[in-house]
Amino acid sequence: MATKNTPKKILLDESEMPTQWYNLVADLPVPPPPALHPGTHEPAGPEDFAPLFPMALIEQEVTTERYIDIPGEVLDIYKLWRPSPLFRAKRLEELLDTPARIYYKYEGVSPAGSHKPNTAVPQAYYNHKEGIKKLTTETGAGQWGSALAFATAQYGMELEVWQVAASYRAKPYRRTMMEIWGATVHSSPSEVTEFGRSLLAENPDHPGSLGIAISEAVAMCVADPEARYALGSVLNHVLMHQTIIGEEALLQLAKVDEVPDLLVGCTGGGSNFGGLAFPFMREKMAGNMNPTIRCVEPAACPSLTRGEYRYDFGDTAGMTPLLKMHTLGHSFIPDPIHAGGLRYHGMSPLVSHVYDQGMVEAIAIGQRECFDAAIKFAKTEGIVPAPEPTHALAAAIREALACKESGEDKVILTALCGHGHLDLAAYDAYLSGEMVDYDLPDEAVNEAMKSVPVLG
Amino acid sequence: MATKNTPKKILLDESEMPTQWYNLVADLPVPPPPALHPGTHEPAGPEDFAPLFPMALIEQEVTTERYIDIPGEVLDIYKLWRPSPLFRAKRLEELLDTPARIYYKYEGVSPAGSHKPNTAVPQAYYNHKEGIKKLTTETGAGQWGSALAFATAQYGMELEVWQVAASYRAKPYRRTMMEIWGATVHSSPSEVTEFGRSLLAENPDHPGSLGIAISEAVAMCVADPEARYALGSVLNHVLMHQTIIGEEALLQLAKVDEVPDLLVGCTGGGSNFGGLAFPFMREKMAGNMNPTIRCVEPAACPSLTRGEYRYDFGDTAGMTPLLKMHTLGHSFIPDPIHAGGLRYHGMSPLVSHVYDQGMVEAIAIGQRECFDAAIKFAKTEGIVPAPEPTHALAAAIREALACKESGEDKVILTALCGHGHLDLAAYDAYLSGEMVDYDLPDEAVNEAMKSVPVLG
Repeated sequence: MATKNTPKKILLDESEMPTQWYNLVADLPVPPPPALHPGTHEPAGPEDFAPLFPMALIEQEVTTERYIDIPGEVLDIYKLWRPSPLFRAKRLEELLDTPARIYYKYEGVSPAGSHKPNTAVPQAYYNHKEGIKKLTTETGAGQWGSALAFATAQYGMELEVWQVAASYRAKPYRRTMMEIWGATVHSSPSEVTEFGRSLLAENPDHPGSLGIAISEAVAMCVADPEARYALGSVLNHVLMHQTIIGEEALLQLAKVDEVPDLLVGCTGGGSNFGGLAFPFMREKMAGNMNPTIRCVEPAACPSLTRGEYRYDFGDTAGMTPLLKMHTLGHSFIPDPIHAGGLRYHGMSPLVSHVYDQGMVEAIAIGQRECFDAAIKFAKTEGIVPAPEPTHALAAAIREALACKESGEDKVILTALCGHGHLDLAAYDAYLSGEMVDYDLPDEAVNEAMKSVPVLG
Repeated sequence: MATKNTPKKILLDESEMPTQWYNLVADLPVPPPPALHPGTHEPAGPEDFAPLFPMALIEQEVTTERYIDIPGEVLDIYKLWRPSPLFRAKRLEELLDTPARIYYKYEGVSPAGSHKPNTAVPQAYYNHKEGIKKLTTETGAGQWGSALAFATAQYGMELEVWQVAASYRAKPYRRTMMEIWGATVHSSPSEVTEFGRSLLAENPDHPGSLGIAISEAVAMCVADPEARYALGSVLNHVLMHQTIIGEEALLQLAKVDEVPDLLVGCTGGGSNFGGLAFPFMREKMAGNMNPTIRCVEPAACPSLTRGEYRYDFGDTAGMTPLLKMHTLGHSFIPDPIHAGGLRYHGMSPLVSHVYDQGMVEAIAIGQRECFDAAIKFAKTEGIVPAPEPTHALAAAIREALACKESGEDKVILTALCGHGHLDLAAYDAYLSGEMVDYDLPDEAVNEAMKSVPVLG
């Protein structure tokens, strides 16, 4: 049973930071299906995306180039926090009494406290470069909205954010963070869009949803030719920007002569998971390593394990192009679990595709097991994790305990995609015994799946 | 006008981490005055401190050794986040259009989000080593309480915290953080001490104060022979543990061939300031550099600039030994400014002594200027600072703008001792225009100074 005297933190110098993003599409044996125009159901072309995104990002969305250079102006801002540290979870291993070696790549060191700035910064940059002065976006708990507020502040751009009303009311501090960086934040549904007004007319206390907030942000973007829209996950270019996580982790593991046996990552829209996993999938396809790669989703919003692989809309109002993805139906409203960033009805088309191809596995875990894992982690490793990556930690702990049984000294790698400093109310609910695991009946899934369009 | 192409982050490898704390007392031309027994007014001996502290810390409090080895068990835990990064504030410099070069040592990377774990960990360690199973302490906003909760969790010890009632009610999330790490938290004044009960009998909604919470934590410690007490600032051994900040910063500046012209640090009890400044004072006394060293305190609690250098109690009830320090009087209750960690009536005896000796300067700044500096900093450097170090940032910006006028390319070093993720309500108050600068009339200071005991 091997033990390795790895340093606690494996750091990279700024000079060692990767200077290219990796595009998984270039290496896939079967290409992923294209997005479809919502009206014609024909493959969507660049012109269909042009009202929403700058041309550089549209090109990145469909490119088959293997690597894309990270612009110098983006690298300069990445250096505010990147390269991010890779930690060996030695104290957690000791608590679990496991022969496994657990590594976590920590993205909570970014200004917004999550991995989201990895794509927020280039998205703001390319818009700025094409003369765009204003962006619109949606946010749930606020991780993405605050990341984009930070990013637009770097380029002197305006930002309007539609935040899901339930979070806007319950978590005022994320809004404050967005305002510190200069953004304007609306509660969604809002009075400023027709869709929002129609929902508020039905219910003035409407709690909102991510799908509704996307509809509002897209509508406001389309109405203003000077504005563009930015999305924090799901799309190919977003996941590609996140691959800097995995590229750094590869360099860091190589520094300590480790090769992972298992990767685990939490999946909501798929950007944190893809960011970590895609560079390792390249190495696996090249025969350089052979890790198992496992998605971990919340039991209350199980798009991979209980959804279907179908063309569906990204938003509630049905305004976006149709994406082939694992979906629970765009009308699905998940139970109010604390991992707000994982409460999305669909899954990134690229992650859905590699899951469909059998290249990755998926499991679903309830939130109480996740917070139990989080407390164990905080007490040993110190960091209080965001609710989203507690899913990956719970899966890592399951595997480490299995190693204890089997005696295997597996190397487990996970991405700790953010800290939980703005999610302490969730911990309070767990510690006071008020947190519940929601049951998701088949009927609820079947009902929501009826909203998925039937294509001719 | 020199410009330096310094990297954004200057990192140290774990193998480069200092392994000794520095004791400024060993090098002072005039020794600092001793603590006095509160009853006899004679110099306090080890036996007077024994009910409160373990012998190892009492020895560190009075030692004249120049360096103390950091135990391996403490270094192991420091490595969860140390060495901490030194950043060059390039983007802030660009915003200010200054020839000055601004560096900040960032302690917000610790699990508790501040510099406090630097002393919490060794304090827990030495108590644990002497068989102590339980600690008591006080906390204001909660930075110190959460640091000690993290530290005691590492050694499987119990912790009871008395948190100032106003903060306990207004900031429930710091309490949650302490509970995540396993601590028990009381609102102070509490029903569990006689002093607390007497105050609640007068006023059931008593807002509490740091001095009152210290009295309660000390009383509970004295009543339980198995327990000891821990203090988060003020005392010599606490400041000595913090010198790892300055020792690392010296190594980091040397890596980029920089010598500071000015050090600025915020001062509440003095531990963040001392931690950064004392190793640089050693270098200054040795003739290796000649920086100006400046304390920055809040205008609402100006113990150095408006207090007197007198023997006073550390707590409200008058239970602690008498310490010679700059004090506003132990009955002084500062206005409710947002930098809770700087709301203390006294100043570390060691910082008071070097100020009295003319080795350091001091200025006081109002909180609105501090938050204006914080917003400039967050928009450029990304990090949202805790309210306490915004005082140092405001002073750094004053100096950088003076350099712009004079054309001097001074090297300015400051300590960013924590992030503001749990202080966003303060930013909300500033951004909404509700934050005020309090006026502190001479009469208020004169009245509180009457509580300072007159020694025979």
